Amino acid sequence: MFKLDSRLQSDTLLIAHLPLCDLLLMNDKQYPWCILVPRIHDISEMHQLTASQQSLLNVESTRLSQVLVDICQPTTLNIAALGNVVRQLHVHHVARFEDDVAWPNPIWGRYKPLAYSATEASDLILSIKGHSLLQDLVTR
Amino acid sequence: MFKLDSRLQSDTLLIAHLPLCDLLLMNDKQYPWCILVPRIHDISEMHQLTASQQSLLNVESTRLSQVLVDICQPTTLNIAALGNVVRQLHVHHVARFEDDVAWPNPIWGRYKPLAYSATEASDLILSIKGHSLLQDLVTR
Repeated sequence: MFKLDSRLQSDTLLIAHLPLCDLLLMNDKQYPWCILVPRIHDISEMHQLTASQQSLLNVESTRLSQVLVDICQPTTLNIAALGNVVRQLHVHHVARFEDDVAWPNPIWGRYKPLAYSATEASDLILSIKGHSLLQDLVTR
Repeated sequence: MFKLDSRLQSDTLLIAHLPLCDLLLMNDKQYPWCILVPRIHDISEMHQLTASQQSLLNVESTRLSQVLVDICQPTTLNIAALGNVVRQLHVHHVARFEDDVAWPNPIWGRYKPLAYSATEASDLILSIKGHSLLQDLVTR
């Protein structure tokens, strides 16, 4: 049975359940940083997904990307499945800006996270979850 | 018309043409590191691909991942579309090991590349391109 990795659980806030994935917000206000975690037991690599799971992930990743672009207007998105620290398959979606603290390097393992205030987190979660491009995918 | 980015051109060796992507080998022997570049003009983000292009990319990425796992037996694969330095859409596939020089950090922007010798490069290219899981996708 699927159980969210304990490190992901402690570092993130839940935005929504989508058909395939839990959609999480990394609690680090240095970058708008979402994570999709397929609710599949014991999977660690993208190529272990079935073709139909990959299609679902594509839909969820594409919609999330469009929402991040619409809300944040970033320079680019960094989309990555790494798994060096947390083995449970999870796909980062990070809105990057030329004036962010890590630019042009990747963000992972660079800077200590800066937590959102409760209001900041709740505002961002509502704007992502309530966006028209995601609304019809949100199951709860 | 599609033209490979000049930075990608100079940093990589061509392995093969696949139906959607050029398959490249990063000329850095610190990690087995391949790159898929969709041959689509003026595209920089994954979510700009059409659904059918995403399906093709899934197939090519899955096969390439299986080949890297089979040949290299890595601890994990790092799969990422970043675009902070080179804007042309390209998807990294890096075989990572617990004893590689950058572990557990991401590899990008960390260590100066170490070029393959001509024989090393040609052996690796042939073993990837000639693998039974990729052979039927190689168009040239």
